[in-house]
Order: sequence, then structure tokens, then C-alpha cells
Amino acid sequence: MNELHKLRLGNFDFRSHCIELCCSLKLCWVDHFGFNTDKTFKQRYLIADKHWKKDGGSILFYTGNEGDITWFCNNTGFMWDMAEELKAMLVFAEHRYYGESLPFGANSFKDSTHLNFLTSEQALADFAKLIKHLKRTVPGAKNQPVIALGGSYGGMLAAWFRMKYPHMVVGALASSAPIWQFEDLVPCGVFMEIVTADFRKSGPNCSESIRRSWDAIRRLTSTGPGLHWLSEALRLCSPLTNSQDVEHLKDWITETWVNLAMVDYPYESNFLQPLPAWPIKVVCQYLKNPNVSDPQLLENIFQALNVYYNYSGQVKCLNMSETATRSLGSLGWSYQACTEMVMPFCTNGIDDMFEPHSWNLKEFSDDCFKQWGVRPRPSWITTMYGGKNISSHTNIIFSNGDLDPWSGGGVTENVTDTLVAITIPEGAHHLDLRANNAFDPTSVLLARSLEVRYMKQWIKNFYASLRKKH
Amino acid sequence: MNELHKLRLGNFDFRSHCIELCCSLKLCWVDHFGFNTDKTFKQRYLIADKHWKKDGGSILFYTGNEGDITWFCNNTGFMWDMAEELKAMLVFAEHRYYGESLPFGANSFKDSTHLNFLTSEQALADFAKLIKHLKRTVPGAKNQPVIALGGSYGGMLAAWFRMKYPHMVVGALASSAPIWQFEDLVPCGVFMEIVTADFRKSGPNCSESIRRSWDAIRRLTSTGPGLHWLSEALRLCSPLTNSQDVEHLKDWITETWVNLAMVDYPYESNFLQPLPAWPIKVVCQYLKNPNVSDPQLLENIFQALNVYYNYSGQVKCLNMSETATRSLGSLGWSYQACTEMVMPFCTNGIDDMFEPHSWNLKEFSDDCFKQWGVRPRPSWITTMYGGKNISSHTNIIFSNGDLDPWSGGGVTENVTDTLVAITIPEGAHHLDLRANNAFDPTSVLLARSLEVRYMKQWIKNFYASLRKKH
Repeated sequence: MNELHKLRLGNFDFRSHCIELCCSLKLCWVDHFGFNTDKTFKQRYLIADKHWKKDGGSILFYTGNEGDITWFCNNTGFMWDMAEELKAMLVFAEHRYYGESLPFGANSFKDSTHLNFLTSEQALADFAKLIKHLKRTVPGAKNQPVIALGGSYGGMLAAWFRMKYPHMVVGALASSAPIWQFEDLVPCGVFMEIVTADFRKSGPNCSESIRRSWDAIRRLTSTGPGLHWLSEALRLCSPLTNSQDVEHLKDWITETWVNLAMVDYPYESNFLQPLPAWPIKVVCQYLKNPNVSDPQLLENIFQALNVYYNYSGQVKCLNMSETATRSLGSLGWSYQACTEMVMPFCTNGIDDMFEPHSWNLKEFSDDCFKQWGVRPRPSWITTMYGGKNISSHTNIIFSNGDLDPWSGGGVTENVTDTLVAITIPEGAHHLDLRANNAFDPTSVLLARSLEVRYMKQWIKNFYASLRKKH
Repeated sequence: MNELHKLRLGNFDFRSHCIELCCSLKLCWVDHFGFNTDKTFKQRYLIADKHWKKDGGSILFYTGNEGDITWFCNNTGFMWDMAEELKAMLVFAEHRYYGESLPFGANSFKDSTHLNFLTSEQALADFAKLIKHLKRTVPGAKNQPVIALGGSYGGMLAAWFRMKYPHMVVGALASSAPIWQFEDLVPCGVFMEIVTADFRKSGPNCSESIRRSWDAIRRLTSTGPGLHWLSEALRLCSPLTNSQDVEHLKDWITETWVNLAMVDYPYESNFLQPLPAWPIKVVCQYLKNPNVSDPQLLENIFQALNVYYNYSGQVKCLNMSETATRSLGSLGWSYQACTEMVMPFCTNGIDDMFEPHSWNLKEFSDDCFKQWGVRPRPSWITTMYGGKNISSHTNIIFSNGDLDPWSGGGVTENVTDTLVAITIPEGAHHLDLRANNAFDPTSVLLARSLEVRYMKQWIKNFYASLRKKH
């Protein structure tokens, strides 16, 4: 570790200790697209340069998504793993309105006036300004290639960043980025169908047990004693008292299955929750028999939920108000979903294991207006970012895991020679971005090595064209 | 003319009668990049489909710039001239805050709050939404290639539109588009050097006479009687009364020479003013002798100015408050120059024929703050649109006339095989966009034919890839 590094980053254990990275702050315009306010805020970013080489190096730039950047940093081991090979400086940029990058501090979510600057376009502009800032202020960074990387919404941002600012980054790795989960680009049911398939594949009768659980819940909760019984059976922290609670319960259980599908990793992990390896397989061990009484089925469902919420064994009761890590900024995302990020989802109960729900934009819009005072513009993202018509762009890797429900809205076939899709049959949500692990399936190892190969090619081409210029 | 056409456009004389095109209006969000307001306004656009073919046709989309769209429509005869060959529908889209497309009606320029939505990004988003609207509502338009065209700032918008929305347009013709007249991408003096060269080339001693005129003005206006004499000699509508007026006079004369350089067309025209063919040559006939007395030199300057302001012979006095057509929205452009469109200009009096003026950002910024309550962000445009690093884009023609001072900030050499430069040695400001004329020099005819060839290729490629998809 060189002195500069010590000075800038403190004495930290390289890799997966992002929390200890001394964060840097950059002043950003609150509004890049209007000049009426000259208000600024501090954007946080993390930087690690242990393996960075000024000679022939590169900059890997994580386009932060809807949460605390240290959490994404800790869950993006792939960047740390390839830093040495790519002689790379690592930069993790926090997305405005998340983590500590709050344009209006504690008031940031107060109302639609304060939230007005929470958009993907503003976030991309923050990234562009940050790269300019680093190139100007970090000696040796100026003539180096930058590669954008991100997962999930961060993957969408990485892809969009390459599309909109190709002068800033030579390419992008967009992992599990559902850039087509908008309008009618993909069927609205595909997401839940993949969730269902994951459970179907992970144990006999598993998805069928879940499919039957909804009616069982309905029957059980039709009486007061039934409500009471179910609250006890599921060890709920707050007992169910009315039909609204029951709807909430079903939503919460649904979200649990969805989350399990996202984090169905081949080894013990702690992304949304601490979990065992292949958690859906563990869950499905409790859901082998759908032909049992309603109470027995719900006892089984409890055991399954308990895998997700209480793998540590320390939890006293299950809390319906939480489904995932607090590092995710659910408030900010709820606003984004109500404005730009309008993703239609639906279920029919036939191709999936859920109760049928059609996509109702009107209802969704009304709910958004009630909550935030804004209405979604569902066609904006495709207008802005091109929908399926993206073939004129170059150098973007779209990687998707077949287990990941988000792969349904992702790019899973090559668009052109330089807009390439990598699929990982045994992969859940952005598995490729996670640190190397002894239990990684071969498919993700192959994916990562292919990704590195593309990135090296981009870097090589960058330096070749730089030499040509001089 | 088919019936549909009659119905939509009325009975008009195809070509150069844009004023009679029945304008269409489209509702636009005032703010595409924020959701706090759902206010809309009516954007005007003109449409002509006499030669449009639903089978194998195309859409030529003029990305309107800082003025009334009918005026640009009337001065973009090239689009009308090639409509039949390209089976093209012509669309002329008005830029927000100009002509009749005023987001807040008469209050649009009231203050920086109302002006907050006057940016190039918002304008490009308007264009994107308009194209989507046309494709959705005009039967037969959906699967047709769109080409963006524009001149000057409109040319910058055409190029930027292809860069940012390549899914919307298959290519762009950016005529006389000074996309590099920002920051230090080109020397700040190049613009005035080209103006000077035009005068130098157009008559013996012409630029030298102008160079000497500034000192002559200074000497003459150092006394009260001198001020009076000069006001009379120049037939000014409002006499000069103080040194501030004299500064204004010099600015006004300077702008006149600049405008003449822009519109130094090979035939009689009426773009900024009604003018004879090769107007600088006409002007220079009065400026052959720099070695005359101050009063004689200024008499000669008057004759020169009179060519520009009084070609019709109907003007009684010269009005220093106007230099060009009222169709240009000078108020809106002044705001844009004070925010995004920060173009550094300077003179040194040696390489050019003007008084030396260095570029002073601080002073410029203070003036902007005084006038509009906003401060410029001079590096924003290069951050947003890439500066000189644009090689990853495709299908943009940058055409420039060597006589045009704006060519100094333009792309005058090929960047790649598909980002091509066309130079027109005898061309002034976007001469290629003007209607065919018997006095057109061969160079502009060649330029236009090359431009048409590129456009045809884009159209052909579009249909080829469409066939491949189906």
C-alpha cells in the first residue's frame, strides 16, 4: 500500500471493507437542468486505489443505485477482485437522495418540491460531473479509460450512462439491469413467472404449496379466532386485526418470495437478509406437501418465512414492516417508481403462483398522487433511453441470471457485436458482481471472465486510439 | 396535391410559403426533468406532406432554433427541394420560448423562475416527444426513418439530438453548427478572425479601413460637436450623447460586420436583412481607401452600413437598437447565452480588424446575474455533449462554409467514417440549407448532393434493418 493510498483511504483492509473507506464528498448542483437555483449538495463517493496504476491503468466507476453506497460497495466484490488485473482505481458513487447524499438533508423527502431533483437524468449528470472532477483533481487519472459498472437499477444507470455520456466511459457492465421492464416492452407477468419457476425448480410441490396458501389464508382469516390463530402461527410482531392487515400480510409474503428469488445465491450470503446457501431450496424443504390442512399449510409457510427472516435464529417475532436491509432507500425508490420508473407488473395465478392482479396504471397513478403529489409518466423512460431501439450504442455488457426475476426485463440476447448479453443459468440478482466464492457455479465464473475480457478490450482500444492521437 | 394534404395544410404554394402552413400544436410538459409541476404548453410545428410517401418515405425533421419557426421554415429551402427525392414529410418544430411556443405566454421572460425551463435539454426532449406523437398519430409514419436537420444553434440541436436520441433519428445534418465554440475547445479569437478574413478577401483595403475606423470614431467623438457630426454623418435615428452611446455605436457596427459575414450569400437574399448578392463585396466598394481623413473614413463607413440597413432605400435613419430580423428571439438567446450557451469570444486587433477585447468570464457572469439573476455554467455543455470527444456517435454530417465565422467553432474535418465534415469554400452561414439558386457556387451544389447521398444511405440502411427484423 503506497503512501498516497494510506493518506487518502486510511489504513483499511482492501476488499469488502467499504464502510471503512474514508468517504469523499463532491459538491453537486441540485439542479443540472435548470439555472434558477444555484444550490449545491454534497455527493458522497468511495475511492480505492491500492492496485491503481497511473501507467496503463483504468478507472472502474460504480454507478450507485437506490441505497447507501457503502452497502453496494460491500456487495460488489467483483470490482475488488479484478482491480489488480485491470490496474484499476475503484470509485463508488452514491446516488443522490440515498445514503448520505441528500440534497436537502433531513428535508429531502418532505414533499414533491424537495423531491423534484430525484431523477435518473440528474443522477447521471452527477456521475458525469464526478468523473470530470476526478480527472481534473487526481494526478494521473486524466488520460485513463473509465468503465461504468452497476447492478439492478445501478446497472440500468451504467447502461444509460454509456448511452448518454459515451464520451465519459468507454463501456459499461450492466448487471441484472431490467432496462426493458417499462411500458409494454416485455409482458407484465414475466417477473412473477420467473419467481414461480425458481420455487418450482427448487423442490417438489414448492410453488404449488405457495399457490394454495393464498386461499388458505383467506379461509383462515375469515373469522376473528382465525386471525388470532394465524398471527400466532406466523409469530407476527403485530397481530392481524382486520382484512386490511390480511392484504398487507399477503403483500409481505409475496415480497418475501420475490426477494428470495432475487438472492437465491449458491452460498451463505447477506444481501437483503442473512441467508443460507440456495435459500429457496431450504425454504422448499418446508413446502413439499400442498395437500394438507389450511393450518398445517400455514405452519409450513411460517417455517419457510422463518428461513428468510430468522436465519440467525435470534429473531423473536416476524415484522411485516420490513422485508429487506435498511441500506436500501425504500422511500426514494417509491418516489422514483411513481415518476420515471414505472414498471408494470401483473400476475394471473396460472403461469405464476400468486393471486391474480392485473396492472392498473390509473390506480397506481392515483396512489402515487396520494402519497407524493405527483403522477407517473410511464412512457418517459422509453422516450429518453430508447426502449428496445438501442442498437446504435456500443460497448455495453448486459448480464443476467436465469434465476433472477429481473432478467425478464433485461437484455438477454446480443443486440449487436458490441451490445452483448451474458446469461448465467445458475445466477440470481447480479451474482456476477459479487466477490469470488468457492461455491460459485461455473457459469458465473465464465461470465466474469468474459466480462473481464470485454473490459480489457475496451481499455486496450482506448489506449490504442490515444496513441494514434499523439 | 392529395386530399389529405389539402385538408391538413390548406391550399398553399409548396415551398417557401411556410407562413401559410397551417400550424399544428402539441402539448408538452413544461418540465421534462422534474415531476413537481404537471404544467403543459403548446409547442408549434409545421408539417408539409405533399411529396411524402407512406411506402419507402422518410421524415425530415427541422430542430428549430432561437426564433420563429416559420422564418426558419422559409429559409430552409433545401428541405423543400429534396422532399420529392426522399419522398419526405417535412416537419419544422419550434423551439420552446421562441415564436409562439411560449411556456408561460407573455410571462415567459419575466424572471428566472419562468425562464428555468429554457434549456437545450428540454428542447431536445420536446423534439423527442413530438416525433413520438407524430409516429403515433400520423398513419403511415410509424415505421419511417426520421432525419434531424438544423442550421446554426438548430444545427447544434440536430447533432445533439442524434447523439442523445439515436433511437429517434437515423442521422442528422448539422449545418453551420458551432458545437465546439465552448470553453477552450477552439481559440476564442477564431470567430472574429474569420469575419476579418471575409472583409480582407472582398475588396482591397477593406478590413484595414474598418480596423482604422475605431480610432477615428474615438477621435471624432472626443468632443461634443464631433458627437453631433458623427450622429448626422451616420444618419442615426437617436443622436449620440455620451461615451456610453459611443461604446454602443461600436458594438452595433461590430455586430453589423459580423452579420454581414454570416449572410455573405452569392445572391440577393433576405435572411437577417434584405441584401444584395455578395454583400461584403458591395460594402467593400466603399472602403477601398483607409488613408483618408477621419470624417471621410466615417462617411465611407456610413455608406457601408447603409448597404446592410438600407438596401431597399426606404430607410430614413439607422436604428442602433436593431441589427437583424425580429424573427430571432434575442431575449431568449441572451438568457441561453447566460446559462448553457457560454461561448467565449475575443479579439486582439492584430489577427482581426476589431478593437482588442479579451474574454472575461467573471465580467460576463456578473452581467448575466444583473440581467437575469442567473450565472453561466461554462463547462456544462461539454460535460453534457462531449466536447471534442464525440467519436462514438454515428451518422452526423457537419457542414460549414468557409466564409462563415461560426465555422471556427464547427467540425470541419471528418471525425470518423460516419461523423463527416463537409466544407463549402464559398459558403456563408448554412448556405447549404437554403433553396437552390441559379447563382449557387458549385461547392454548395456538391455539398447538397453529398448530403442527399448520405441521407439516402441512412434511409436505405433503416429499411434494410427493418426488413431483417421482420
